[in-house]
Amino acid sequence: MLKGLMQDVPLLVSSLIEHAASCHGDAEIVSRTAEGTINRSTYRDIARRAKGVAKALLALGVKPGERIGTLAWNGYRHMEMYYGVSGMGAVLHTIHPRQFPEQLEYVINHAEDQHLFFDVTFAPLVERLAPMLRTVKHFVAMTDRRNLPLSDIPNLLCYEDLIAGNDEDFSWPVFDEATASSLCYTAGTTGTPKGVLYSHRSTVLHAFAICAADSMALSANEAALLAAPMSHVNGWGVPYAAAMCGMKLVLPGPANDGRSLYELMRDEGVTLALGGPNVWPPIFAHADATHRSPRKDLRLRRVVIGGAVPGGELTERITSQFGASVTQVWGMTETSPIGAVGAPLSAQGEAEKGATTVAEASHGRAPFGIELRLVDDAGRRVPHDGLTRGLLRLRGPWVPAGYFKATGASSLDAEGFFASGDIATIDGKGWLRVTDRAADALKSGGEWMSSAELEAIAVGHPDVFEAALIALPGTPSRTRRLLIILRRSSCEVSRDELLDYLAQRVDRRWLPDDVVFVEHIPHTATGKVHKGQLRAMFAGHPWPSETAAPAV
Amino acid sequence: MLKGLMQDVPLLVSSLIEHAASCHGDAEIVSRTAEGTINRSTYRDIARRAKGVAKALLALGVKPGERIGTLAWNGYRHMEMYYGVSGMGAVLHTIHPRQFPEQLEYVINHAEDQHLFFDVTFAPLVERLAPMLRTVKHFVAMTDRRNLPLSDIPNLLCYEDLIAGNDEDFSWPVFDEATASSLCYTAGTTGTPKGVLYSHRSTVLHAFAICAADSMALSANEAALLAAPMSHVNGWGVPYAAAMCGMKLVLPGPANDGRSLYELMRDEGVTLALGGPNVWPPIFAHADATHRSPRKDLRLRRVVIGGAVPGGELTERITSQFGASVTQVWGMTETSPIGAVGAPLSAQGEAEKGATTVAEASHGRAPFGIELRLVDDAGRRVPHDGLTRGLLRLRGPWVPAGYFKATGASSLDAEGFFASGDIATIDGKGWLRVTDRAADALKSGGEWMSSAELEAIAVGHPDVFEAALIALPGTPSRTRRLLIILRRSSCEVSRDELLDYLAQRVDRRWLPDDVVFVEHIPHTATGKVHKGQLRAMFAGHPWPSETAAPAV
Ligand SMILES: Nc1ncnc2c1ncn2[C@@H]1O[C@H](COP(=O)(O)OP(=O)(O)OP(=O)(O)O)[C@@H](O)[C@H]1O
Ligand SMILES: Nc1ncnc2c1ncn2[C@@H]1O[C@H](COP(=O)(O)OP(=O)(O)OP(=O)(O)O)[C@@H](O)[C@H]1O
Ligand SMILES: [Mg+2]
Ligand SMILES: [Mg+2]
Repeated sequence: MLKGLMQDVPLLVSSLIEHAASCHGDAEIVSRTAEGTINRSTYRDIARRAKGVAKALLALGVKPGERIGTLAWNGYRHMEMYYGVSGMGAVLHTIHPRQFPEQLEYVINHAEDQHLFFDVTFAPLVERLAPMLRTVKHFVAMTDRRNLPLSDIPNLLCYEDLIAGNDEDFSWPVFDEATASSLCYTAGTTGTPKGVLYSHRSTVLHAFAICAADSMALSANEAALLAAPMSHVNGWGVPYAAAMCGMKLVLPGPANDGRSLYELMRDEGVTLALGGPNVWPPIFAHADATHRSPRKDLRLRRVVIGGAVPGGELTERITSQFGASVTQVWGMTETSPIGAVGAPLSAQGEAEKGATTVAEASHGRAPFGIELRLVDDAGRRVPHDGLTRGLLRLRGPWVPAGYFKATGASSLDAEGFFASGDIATIDGKGWLRVTDRAADALKSGGEWMSSAELEAIAVGHPDVFEAALIALPGTPSRTRRLLIILRRSSCEVSRDELLDYLAQRVDRRWLPDDVVFVEHIPHTATGKVHKGQLRAMFAGHPWPSETAAPAV
Repeated sequence: MLKGLMQDVPLLVSSLIEHAASCHGDAEIVSRTAEGTINRSTYRDIARRAKGVAKALLALGVKPGERIGTLAWNGYRHMEMYYGVSGMGAVLHTIHPRQFPEQLEYVINHAEDQHLFFDVTFAPLVERLAPMLRTVKHFVAMTDRRNLPLSDIPNLLCYEDLIAGNDEDFSWPVFDEATASSLCYTAGTTGTPKGVLYSHRSTVLHAFAICAADSMALSANEAALLAAPMSHVNGWGVPYAAAMCGMKLVLPGPANDGRSLYELMRDEGVTLALGGPNVWPPIFAHADATHRSPRKDLRLRRVVIGGAVPGGELTERITSQFGASVTQVWGMTETSPIGAVGAPLSAQGEAEKGATTVAEASHGRAPFGIELRLVDDAGRRVPHDGLTRGLLRLRGPWVPAGYFKATGASSLDAEGFFASGDIATIDGKGWLRVTDRAADALKSGGEWMSSAELEAIAVGHPDVFEAALIALPGTPSRTRRLLIILRRSSCEVSRDELLDYLAQRVDRRWLPDDVVFVEHIPHTATGKVHKGQLRAMFAGHPWPSETAAPAV
């Protein structure tokens, strides 16, 4: 082997903020704070104050590799933590504040967080959690002395006091790019949250991937509203990639209501918005209630949606009423998160006809760096023909090799691929379509069915607001399928009418065994239908007789 | 140190073509061949045939790390060599065929190329060189048996025969990403060509950098004419980055005349063209002579120019007549080549006013991964204020640590920065402006002057076609500056008229000591003014008396 003669410069998180400070020093980070004010910061400021964080942590005795927790909204101080903690060689553990308290307690203890930084909003929560946290030495309120919460939190420190005067004269340490930079737990939709330990290398490579023109196309020419929480999967990696390209960032803090988001987009000239599908309904409601003209008020041109399927209506409204194009991304906590991204093709070859539809129907294609592969239950490869469903596996430098402190069997197969837990199809051009989670999977005649598709068809009924299909133990030869429906208020569709409606639209084999109506469908912290909880709720469901499904 | 738990997947050149084959298998590589025909290939074909190349090399006994030379145009077989050679662990040595024969002989012997692949155009050249080449075992004509050149080349092989039947059933070897992937020598403008040994890592990271939205924004939505030669600096890294994003590539082969390029752009729906400034004058001439309407004929939207300053007229014509925007890049063989790239800002903050001008006047900004630094003669840092000139140094994962087989002192300074040999300014926002090469540098009162600027002003005179300013040994206290002018045909401007013209436009200290008129200005293989040769030609120049410069 002959070694190349290029420089051995490691890919480090600190290099991202240093780059932004030197090439995009004046580009803005605009935040709505937990205290309610609007803060205007720049990459130069973030770089300087992140050094303050690093020095403060050193002064607290933090060692490389130790975990530092954050319970915080999207804001400039959180961004300083992103760079300060990882930059000095410690590990940033972002905690999703909307998780159930037992999950919060579990993840903080499991991560062995040494210090916990929190936005003042969470003071009551922290006060309740504190006695259960076994490793946390200090609780740091991310505010100034004037806004320090009055509470019984032990070992309480004030962020601004901590970093004050600390920001000069510090050089980021240089170390191996394989070093851990941050830790995030999965949403816990299918069980106990699992810790994903990202590295500096994976974080920087992922940032390259999302700056690509065919990916999220992040750019110094955009002003981006980051509505995806920085407390989950590193805010989709956007706080890193934004520094990579010098993009203006607009961080909404705790104010995720429709009006606040709308006005922030308007006031800050937001051109690009990133977040889950749940970001949009409140914005639509606000625009409707106040008779706004989004196309006139806003400069929004692009919307990136991920984490769950955006309903057709959503895409349609963003396109027509807001005049923005929609790009979908698929990913997991495990995949940093981008595993596939859908740039609707327009100019070339395959886009000429039809492919745009494929692109839109799918969740996107793997960017370079991610290899996707479908396998069956036995781990044998199944064809990528756009039809055959298989268990989705991934390989790549921003895909995990295992979970934090996991014991037992490896998470990887013989060829190094990681099991996503999703069921999907992939077509000959690489377009990925996730049809289900394996945990929620429904099989019929040995073939996986798509609960997502059946749910989408059910929601197409004018009386249906939300639908969830779950599998429950049935006869020995097959599981039973229960369709759970939340009707629109004052709508009355009946079980038989709905089964009729479905029977006209789907293959008979796919029809649910029964339909029930509920007043509420439970969701997880990240806005997904909590199918685990539904399965528990309906464990003893009294099934109708075998002939219940109507004749077609 | 805590290690992250992400997969340890190396960044390899073979992964690029595998990605393209699986996600963009049908995207086209359209080539005009050395035989004169148009060939249509796809990423799927290139991936398959590159394996054929790899297996053929193994059969020839090629060992990892050995160098394989190419003397070839931009075409699909050259692209197969890019992937086949590096993919199997050997080193692709691309040789610029327009270099002087002594330089060709020097680089092939210095690289110790084991086999030399050549396009049939170069058969006579290869025949002349062969006796001088000490290490080359086989000469492989990149054609099929029918087009094999009749010549006295020893150990001649036929490319298509060599790879035939070799393409099934081969898995790319996986190895350390620091392994050498390709070798390219500098243009030799300032002396003996120096070898730059790229690694798989540097190549893939550079590809990420040029796919970025704010860089070259390469995309599956573009059809790109690659007019920069694949025989120099890996064709700007575009053959790698195009596979990364699945971009249609249009490769002009030997036909770089205006008509061929114009018609190829038209026939292939080219939306993006990449190449040096010298690509354009023949295209303009063709459009003028045949009264074409480029805006109607072509789908060109973007042009990337690098390697030398694009004259103002050039940019203006591309913009107005071709309706395309121009992005400038600065780079060197050493920097893979992108060291700075100029995305004209438009939407945000600093772009509101004035900055567009700065962006246009400059060569661009460092993409993430490149750190730029200005120093004085003594290596002390000088301010990045947009005014102070300094020697440009660079650091980053696609910048070299040294030259191939170089002996003696390290090429890096104490902080790991590499000396570019260019003189530049950098402003507070990172915009780079290269004003000169250190080898051609002119100092006045301790301050570096810009020969490029003075030349540009001289060319502003209606009678001047081309201008070159060189420094020659003068009095002990300062060097003398000679301005060499090629007049437009039948134009008559005199020495004193020109000095007058300049005196009205530049500071007195910057005026040349003398002006001479020539019939021809020598250029290097890559189209740069050969100042070394000019300095030799005018070594004994009889200077006028000290008072020659006219009073102002
Ligand atoms: N664009 C999308 N469309 C549909 N589903 C998506 C999309 N993006 C992500 N998902 C779903 O979200 C999952 C990843 O979510 P996340 O990592 O936040 O936690 P979780 O999987 O819900 O929790 P846990 O792994 O703890 O059960 C994916 O596996 C996939 O099922
Ligand atoms: N956009 C640009 N504007 C002006 N000059 C440029 C630009 N891009 C590149 N250059 C010049 O080209 C040089 C790099 O050229 P290259 O690596 O091909 O060989 P060379 O420097 O001419 O040859 P050698 O190093 O052997 O003398 C840079 O150092 C710079 O002087
Ligand atoms: Mg999961
Ligand atoms: Mg050079």
